[in-house]
Amino acid sequence: MEKGYVHVYTGNGKGKTTAALGLSIRAVCAGKKVFFGQFVKGMEYSELKCAEFIGNLDIEKFGRRCFIYEEPSEEDIEAARKGLEKMGSILKTGDYDMVVMDELNIALYFKLFTVEEALEAIKGRAPEVEVVITGRYAPKEIIDVADLVTEMKDIKHYYYNGVEARQGIEF
Amino acid sequence: MEKGYVHVYTGNGKGKTTAALGLSIRAVCAGKKVFFGQFVKGMEYSELKCAEFIGNLDIEKFGRRCFIYEEPSEEDIEAARKGLEKMGSILKTGDYDMVVMDELNIALYFKLFTVEEALEAIKGRAPEVEVVITGRYAPKEIIDVADLVTEMKDIKHYYYNGVEARQGIEF
Repeated sequence: MEKGYVHVYTGNGKGKTTAALGLSIRAVCAGKKVFFGQFVKGMEYSELKCAEFIGNLDIEKFGRRCFIYEEPSEEDIEAARKGLEKMGSILKTGDYDMVVMDELNIALYFKLFTVEEALEAIKGRAPEVEVVITGRYAPKEIIDVADLVTEMKDIKHYYYNGVEARQGIEF
Repeated sequence: MEKGYVHVYTGNGKGKTTAALGLSIRAVCAGKKVFFGQFVKGMEYSELKCAEFIGNLDIEKFGRRCFIYEEPSEEDIEAARKGLEKMGSILKTGDYDMVVMDELNIALYFKLFTVEEALEAIKGRAPEVEVVITGRYAPKEIIDVADLVTEMKDIKHYYYNGVEARQGIEF
């Protein structure tokens, strides 16, 4: 069986979760099975609907909302910890060929769990599983464990021109 | 009808075409119709299979191979020009809500057509169409016409450790 690698997509630019979604679809098209777990995000992303009509792609969210302006609550922490636990056990069994830990870096940034706990899940994976981690502010420990790191750099963004997030494009 | 914007995903890191694929899937999940045109690339990418089982996503390639080590031939140029012509007419009609011009920047870098010809296609679009352009070496004129630009920066890549492109991950 081939070795699986760890990807990290970080930085302040658009395209991190989107790239993880693209990787997932490509993997599914190649006959692989993908688990796409989302931390932090609570809103209804269009991609959540994908799993309904694409076989071998399971998407689950373990977040309640984006707490950009306030502290995470106990419930937020609990949702994230439940997500990490589930992803950890999925990683261990190797039932999925690819596991996406969407916004893991943000969960770490808000200290919903520790980087040691995240590393335990990642390092404890069945060796053939490909892991995809997204979110800005990737900590050094996550960069160190990764085989591939891309920084998405915001060069120009229409948000600054007042364009709001649109369904089917941003979510 | 909402205005459509121009995205550019450039830089030397992994995730550009992948992000465009993710955007396409998200758009399809939200009920939009997507045309995904690929310049330069000639190989059989797994995502080409997506279109077979995902409605409202049409993928077509207008390349014959990656000519990294040699000059493009007349046939390469012809394939690319045919692609630009088709995308230009699709952009104009507005039949698709999103048009991906995958590796447009590479086609420009290899002078398969001029930046003026590319700009004519992009600027001549029906105003509601969202345009997604990928490829490293985005020229200034393409950056200028874009509403959103993300640079994918290669921070760490497993290619340097001898990992070869894998089906379902890179293609």
